[in-house]
Amino acid sequence: MYLVSLCQENFMKSEFDFISKIRATSVLSKIGDDCAVLPKDSLTDLVITTDLLVEDIDFRLAWTKPEFLGHKALAVSLSDVAAMGAKPVWAMLSIGIPAQVWKTDFVEQFYDGWLILAEKFGVELVGGDVSKTPDKIVIDSIVAGEVKKGNAVLRSTAQPDDLIFVTGELGGAAAGLQLLEKGEKFGKSKNEKLLLRQLKPHPQTEIGQLLSNLATSMIDLSDGLSSDLFHICQESKVGARIYAERIPIDKNLPVISSENLDLLDFALNGGEDFELLFTVKPKNKKNIFGLKNESKNYAFSCIGEITNKPEIVEIISNNRSQILASKGYRHF
Amino acid sequence: MYLVSLCQENFMKSEFDFISKIRATSVLSKIGDDCAVLPKDSLTDLVITTDLLVEDIDFRLAWTKPEFLGHKALAVSLSDVAAMGAKPVWAMLSIGIPAQVWKTDFVEQFYDGWLILAEKFGVELVGGDVSKTPDKIVIDSIVAGEVKKGNAVLRSTAQPDDLIFVTGELGGAAAGLQLLEKGEKFGKSKNEKLLLRQLKPHPQTEIGQLLSNLATSMIDLSDGLSSDLFHICQESKVGARIYAERIPIDKNLPVISSENLDLLDFALNGGEDFELLFTVKPKNKKNIFGLKNESKNYAFSCIGEITNKPEIVEIISNNRSQILASKGYRHF
Repeated sequence: MYLVSLCQENFMKSEFDFISKIRATSVLSKIGDDCAVLPKDSLTDLVITTDLLVEDIDFRLAWTKPEFLGHKALAVSLSDVAAMGAKPVWAMLSIGIPAQVWKTDFVEQFYDGWLILAEKFGVELVGGDVSKTPDKIVIDSIVAGEVKKGNAVLRSTAQPDDLIFVTGELGGAAAGLQLLEKGEKFGKSKNEKLLLRQLKPHPQTEIGQLLSNLATSMIDLSDGLSSDLFHICQESKVGARIYAERIPIDKNLPVISSENLDLLDFALNGGEDFELLFTVKPKNKKNIFGLKNESKNYAFSCIGEITNKPEIVEIISNNRSQILASKGYRHF
Repeated sequence: MYLVSLCQENFMKSEFDFISKIRATSVLSKIGDDCAVLPKDSLTDLVITTDLLVEDIDFRLAWTKPEFLGHKALAVSLSDVAAMGAKPVWAMLSIGIPAQVWKTDFVEQFYDGWLILAEKFGVELVGGDVSKTPDKIVIDSIVAGEVKKGNAVLRSTAQPDDLIFVTGELGGAAAGLQLLEKGEKFGKSKNEKLLLRQLKPHPQTEIGQLLSNLATSMIDLSDGLSSDLFHICQESKVGARIYAERIPIDKNLPVISSENLDLLDFALNGGEDFELLFTVKPKNKKNIFGLKNESKNYAFSCIGEITNKPEIVEIISNNRSQILASKGYRHF
């Protein structure tokens, strides 16, 4: 759910006006996060998100498989729910399909991919819509989650001196996209891991829930680290300082380039890794790394700290500081 | 929200399989109604729906105005919420727009239309998504409502001998569509009322809530009376008998044809009137007509009764009974 992210990524007056207008007519706290937060009962808040995926904009049929697409449609929304620290509970799925695709087994395979991931996290499909389209497939994925009342982790609550963390490794999804653009095919590539980062992303559903008591702010890395860190700074009215050498670059990335600077660019500005970017109080640093060892393969990197310079994101590389431009994914 | 309606409207094996599969993997009671019904708190249920609108399938830009389209996108989902007897509370809106449309004031006008209707019924916009599309506009409208626990009115609970009612007048929206197809333009037509029935439908939000204690089953007339009555019969495992002369044909319809039979066809098989079709216990008949007189201009017609012949819909015309084929809107 990115309604507000356009605000920063675009420069046409109408778009600023549009987003301002939408925010002015809504309760501010409900727009500007990965999910809307709504009261459910006396103990629980409901978080909910919607993500629109459009053929030839967000995916290409020639590059993916229907079951990967079904998986990804759910994964992107699960990632939004994870970024709120919430547990996903139910989902709806609207899908628009051209008549010629309807005649194939696309829809069945698509739902297979969707349902396998839904079952993994106990998400129930409660409804949806199916429509015809003139030529392109469109998918709208809606996922709702639950979180202890008041515990939803927002983008707007980072504070100066908080430490900045990311989960996992970055840049793989963008590298996978570049390989697909260059003609590599899933099933016939030596770089399947990178292709899968792009085609079948893994949402950080378990980690997100573990962080609901520890993170002071959180966002999922859908647009790219530089953009998404800027979103946190913008919403929290703070700045950030990150260290280039601490950024966990995907270990499979060297196939893309032998230059470290190029690899850093993928990790900073490539989108769709669907890892989590979050901040914690310095005193809780060891609790985060504690989570790492508790079970499974949780990987966390502390990449920097929040500063008191609103909307200024600095990157330190070889002891030199630079202002980091926000170069993530743009819709327009 | 029509996930299940395809089951009846299509005849390709894959579609039956697909819907059966989706229903088998979900809680049955949550799919097959205008909205999913989910527990909210100890007193309240949440109902939620999603409706996908695709350019050149569900609307044509040349026929409508952006603010009408914004209105209609919300109205179709409000109508689903009304059909559950629920009060609409919040909404999300995902919209995909080609780059050339984004450069115009389309989006602003679209949201103006959306927001005016939202304000009328106290619906809060809590989130959404905006994406680029290659060429066509797509809209996914998500609306949630609240209803007293256990009081959501389903399609599956009609019983033999219940009386069948509709609100308002029927056939106007389909007639409006035919006029638009024949080249009539809004603002330059003598038949603005019919065009508005198609372009700017009025959801029965207030009536729906009043019926939550009286209706034994309910659906909104989105596909057309013949189809939607069939949906109730199918879900309730009952039949229906309706009387042609009792069907409230839109008073503006004679511009379309001078033949009564043609007009009846519009009322029976034309979709998108967004009136409510519901059933009540015979003892409550006078309570329904009581609602009529209570305030405003509520119009109800009692058009027939539920029978014990599963999935058989009869229509009585000039004392002759015929089986009514379900000829409403088909997606494919």
